[in-house]
Amino acid sequence: MTKFKNSNRPMLPRGMATFLPEAAIHKRHIEETVLSVFLSWGYLEVIPPIFEYLDVIALGMSEELLEKGYKFVDRGNGRLMLLRPDVTPQIARMAAMLMADVPKPLRLCYRANVFRHEEEHAGRARELFQIGGELIGLEGPEADAEVIAIAIEALLKIGLTDFKIALGQVEFFRGLMNGLGLASDLQKQVHAAVVRKDRSKLAEVLDQGGLPETKARQITAILSLFGQDEVIEQAWGLTTLPACRAALARLREVFRALIAAGWKEHLIIDLAEIRGFDYYTGIIFEVFAKDLGVPLGRGGRYDSLVGKFGTPCPSTGFAFDAEQLQWAWQKTLGAVPEVPGEVLLIETRRDMVRLFQLARTLREKGYRVIQHLEKMDVREAVTRFQGAGIQRLFMLMGGEKAVLINCRTGSQQSGRIPVLLSKL
Amino acid sequence: MTKFKNSNRPMLPRGMATFLPEAAIHKRHIEETVLSVFLSWGYLEVIPPIFEYLDVIALGMSEELLEKGYKFVDRGNGRLMLLRPDVTPQIARMAAMLMADVPKPLRLCYRANVFRHEEEHAGRARELFQIGGELIGLEGPEADAEVIAIAIEALLKIGLTDFKIALGQVEFFRGLMNGLGLASDLQKQVHAAVVRKDRSKLAEVLDQGGLPETKARQITAILSLFGQDEVIEQAWGLTTLPACRAALARLREVFRALIAAGWKEHLIIDLAEIRGFDYYTGIIFEVFAKDLGVPLGRGGRYDSLVGKFGTPCPSTGFAFDAEQLQWAWQKTLGAVPEVPGEVLLIETRRDMVRLFQLARTLREKGYRVIQHLEKMDVREAVTRFQGAGIQRLFMLMGGEKAVLINCRTGSQQSGRIPVLLSKL
Repeated sequence: MTKFKNSNRPMLPRGMATFLPEAAIHKRHIEETVLSVFLSWGYLEVIPPIFEYLDVIALGMSEELLEKGYKFVDRGNGRLMLLRPDVTPQIARMAAMLMADVPKPLRLCYRANVFRHEEEHAGRARELFQIGGELIGLEGPEADAEVIAIAIEALLKIGLTDFKIALGQVEFFRGLMNGLGLASDLQKQVHAAVVRKDRSKLAEVLDQGGLPETKARQITAILSLFGQDEVIEQAWGLTTLPACRAALARLREVFRALIAAGWKEHLIIDLAEIRGFDYYTGIIFEVFAKDLGVPLGRGGRYDSLVGKFGTPCPSTGFAFDAEQLQWAWQKTLGAVPEVPGEVLLIETRRDMVRLFQLARTLREKGYRVIQHLEKMDVREAVTRFQGAGIQRLFMLMGGEKAVLINCRTGSQQSGRIPVLLSKL
Repeated sequence: MTKFKNSNRPMLPRGMATFLPEAAIHKRHIEETVLSVFLSWGYLEVIPPIFEYLDVIALGMSEELLEKGYKFVDRGNGRLMLLRPDVTPQIARMAAMLMADVPKPLRLCYRANVFRHEEEHAGRARELFQIGGELIGLEGPEADAEVIAIAIEALLKIGLTDFKIALGQVEFFRGLMNGLGLASDLQKQVHAAVVRKDRSKLAEVLDQGGLPETKARQITAILSLFGQDEVIEQAWGLTTLPACRAALARLREVFRALIAAGWKEHLIIDLAEIRGFDYYTGIIFEVFAKDLGVPLGRGGRYDSLVGKFGTPCPSTGFAFDAEQLQWAWQKTLGAVPEVPGEVLLIETRRDMVRLFQLARTLREKGYRVIQHLEKMDVREAVTRFQGAGIQRLFMLMGGEKAVLINCRTGSQQSGRIPVLLSKL
């Protein structure tokens, strides 16, 4: 054997996934299912390039994301290229630069891998597979509700039932910070404490910021704004600031449309969910499955992003992490989808022409046919192929004779080829 | 507008493709079609990682290919990583290292992008999309015939008819070189001249090599071994060397099986086609479409590759270039596949809940439904959406009233919602 088997050096860069057939079938099944839901809502697939010039795409990416990106120098002109760490900024760039003249709204979906350096101890993959969609050019709450509805329908179509969508609204927090007149530095400290849901740190920050008790209480209350419908009413009572009220009115409208669709059991409101605050500008959401610590997906409104590439345009969207979906799915359902109608066609006289012809006839009838050219008798064939995941053996013997073997039941039938073909 | 519009600097790294919706639909249609043919032959999809450690994968790649590869340093451990410039060596590595215990033959297929630096003036893409398959662990001519048959079936299923498969057999050339006792240096010079089909250069090389007239004539004859069946017989008459005769016997067998399948019009034999000679070890082929200078795909037998990763294993396979397929397809057929049953559902009373409910009902019936929430009358809707690629408008008016508009014929029907739903 090769030297590699005895080596301690890994054969593959960490976090780089290899999908062997079973996993690849799962992945494809999930991707096709999610994309089919996007398509049924009128979304059109796009395929963005895997590289971008760093100086171009950086306009739409946070420092943190850029830091995680794989960069290298274009040999031709020395410019820095970035292997995409995220797809949404690419779609935003495409919408602003390539589709500026196409009537809005645009409904675009994609299936794409992204690449991020992650700390090794975190055990996070560095090649991630995203399936997502963007609704570009629509400002109203119906757009927020639409992308969340698509996420829910996709999860249900995959077969998942035990999931939650945590809805947030960054504009409520933003409205409160601005309305209460917090300085930019203090806003940042408050934001950090709220993101970590760290109540004592938040109290400390507010205290040091010298905020009056009434204001501090309003901010601290955010950490408790977590639950169902009642959360919106609690928040409504908390402040009369117009920006906060407008944010809540929109959240209420979206929440009600989703409830009316029958999805109440999947919905949670969490007004302290303000991650990605720099990027998002409205309703955001995260998808969680039972017993999985990492979200299955996330998304939200990002009205400022497309404009960074030239044409301002309100937008919302989300992406699933295909591998997380796969894990949730395997936990819930487990089984590999059955491969229908598989036949191993064995030509025992080694007549290649006959093998090809008959295999083709079977494929035209819709069977998946594996061709096999080898001299062997029935007993040998059964020994070798029963239990190898094949459903039926069709053995071509001398002349017009054939044997049909059902690998599951073990039953055998002998007869003329056309007769056995009709029994497949 | 943005500063970029006025800049001469390109927005995208050259050769990096962006697929807007129409092109993405084409690409997906072609990929799905080719993969469906692989699946019907019992091939299973795998997804190899996009990065490999350079020292590992280099075992299975030529210097030339490695030179074209994008390389960078793994931040974690300083090892050099390679963004894959080819998929077959990855599949070979997976077969040898991860699937060594799986009974052979393996039938694996994939759809994957590869990355190569190309000279800019050549206008070649640097991100290429391959769709291919590998048949690993089968030595006989039925394996060679199988992969070529899959290529032909895939091309026909896509709808291409005007294509040729050029069949070569590198073992014939190798047998001749070794049998005639040419020194390694001279073999290389001869090879280079034959690849370029440069008759005068070949004569010069053979003359300087001091080869006797009879041997030189045998080698020069290769340049004329191009055509149909008769080529095999001409080559047979040229030499009695056993290695050459064995190579021809195999080629004859494969050729006959493909002719018997009815594909004679698509087949050409070219014994001077010996590109990839270092890599291939038997029958090779290239796929050409009319009026396209670049092959649509290529493949062949590579019995030494898998062994470089640990477990020797005879193998053959091929890959299509998805973009070349797409161009050939667009030249031949042109039209975008029709998107069936698309409906723009307009809720003119801005009732979000009703919009979502009715859209869902329609989707459950199989329609692709785009949701739209806006106050407008029929005339306005027709002005805005006729000619926008939408098939039908379904406008929800007050109460139970609705209007159904066929955007192609311009016909309009008014009535109650359930009545109009039944007329969709």
